[in-house]
Amino acid sequence: MRASKRSVAVLAYDGLCTFEFALAVEIFGLRRPELGVPWYDFKVCAVEPGPLRAEGGITMLARHGLRAIESASTVVVPGWRHELEEPPPAVIASLRRAHARGARLISICSGAFVLAATGLLDGKRATTHWQYAKLFAERYPRVQLVPDVLYVDEGRLLTSAGSAAGLDLCMHVVRKDYGAAIANEVARRLVIAPHREGGQAQFVPEPVAPTESGSPLSPVLEWALRSLREPISVRRLARRAGMSERTFCRRFFDQLGTSPARWLIGQRVIAAQR
Amino acid sequence: MRASKRSVAVLAYDGLCTFEFALAVEIFGLRRPELGVPWYDFKVCAVEPGPLRAEGGITMLARHGLRAIESASTVVVPGWRHELEEPPPAVIASLRRAHARGARLISICSGAFVLAATGLLDGKRATTHWQYAKLFAERYPRVQLVPDVLYVDEGRLLTSAGSAAGLDLCMHVVRKDYGAAIANEVARRLVIAPHREGGQAQFVPEPVAPTESGSPLSPVLEWALRSLREPISVRRLARRAGMSERTFCRRFFDQLGTSPARWLIGQRVIAAQR
Repeated sequence: MRASKRSVAVLAYDGLCTFEFALAVEIFGLRRPELGVPWYDFKVCAVEPGPLRAEGGITMLARHGLRAIESASTVVVPGWRHELEEPPPAVIASLRRAHARGARLISICSGAFVLAATGLLDGKRATTHWQYAKLFAERYPRVQLVPDVLYVDEGRLLTSAGSAAGLDLCMHVVRKDYGAAIANEVARRLVIAPHREGGQAQFVPEPVAPTESGSPLSPVLEWALRSLREPISVRRLARRAGMSERTFCRRFFDQLGTSPARWLIGQRVIAAQR
Repeated sequence: MRASKRSVAVLAYDGLCTFEFALAVEIFGLRRPELGVPWYDFKVCAVEPGPLRAEGGITMLARHGLRAIESASTVVVPGWRHELEEPPPAVIASLRRAHARGARLISICSGAFVLAATGLLDGKRATTHWQYAKLFAERYPRVQLVPDVLYVDEGRLLTSAGSAAGLDLCMHVVRKDYGAAIANEVARRLVIAPHREGGQAQFVPEPVAPTESGSPLSPVLEWALRSLREPISVRRLARRAGMSERTFCRRFFDQLGTSPARWLIGQRVIAAQR
């Protein structure tokens, strides 16, 4: 069966993260006749039978099972119940099949652990909640973790950072699918900014050090974190790294998903709040 | 029974707004041992028996009924299913009793219609989603609608604007209960700003005119909306209103919940986005 162009399936599991799940409902699952465009066809797919427990002490029943993701063009994986628990093989197989037939896979918060378990993120960039960054990097060393951003778009594999960053990623998807004018309209109805400046790092209680300790950038970034009170120019950082400014900026962006200037601002904000 | 100091009950009804409900779960209902303080005791209270339908095509079961709000120090009323439907008398009576014994009542989005139906907001300031502002003002003319802000705090009656503004209000409540340091920590875990600048008006597609057309401010504000491209000083606005700057600013804040300068910035942003 050919997937409808704009259909979204959201996974639901026992131990569901209610908020991360609900933000996908809010963006993709409400009827929005006022927009004047055919909106997403939306399905909640329970990956386990029976009532699912969800945060807040409620139980939930979904109308669809795992098979319903077979007809979805976009599959959303909300926060997974435990970052150390391997997702069920049937879920991994379903996600792989969905990806193989061309579907787009999106994770919110710790849902990145489910996506990474499929192996599809190997060699690709991805992000997750800052509190899981270290664990994620250890568990999935082949994935290029970008801890510093709100979301990462690798085409058909999109991952978002902690909790509310899922709103940013889902809005990004709406912008790709329907354009900025429609996305702005949806954002206004949600009373959120159509686009948030800065990355997840601004919300991290500790300054973010680069995860790959073997990286040539590591000593430079560690020095920068120790020297935040001094004036630090990009030129100075590049010189310490023994690179041209251009190469330094490119490598920096590749590894941290943001520019050196923006990263410095974020780290200074964090340091000032401590 | 004396209410525990920090217990939160969230109402759930058939036709529940999943996102607005879930953000209350996220802020008040997760266990947060890492904060090192006794967190809220949290209950979801179904106001109707049986499975409740919620947005996204799911059904939900709550562990508690309406009676459980009797032991809560804070009651959260999430988005109501229809702004024209009168809430059930039992809900109105429960909320009145909770308020009478000293509980704090909070509404999110169209939940303001439920709070207003209790009569408790009469003569007080309140807000709701910008898309319901006109209807709310017509239906509850005794409530002083403040359409321009993210939330209004009237002590034990707190109302928030559309959708995600519920996050702002709930964070405000956490700040009041536990202080800024704990609130900042929670905000970081949610990957949201501890405090958003500007009011709901920045997200409204049309410039916000004052709701009370008989107000002495109306002609001045209407003139300001027509003249946004000109430089407009507060002094100039006050002179047009025939008031001292101080009186003008006080009246302005009373009516719109924001300062003239901030309102002007918001209206210019909206005009620039049109």
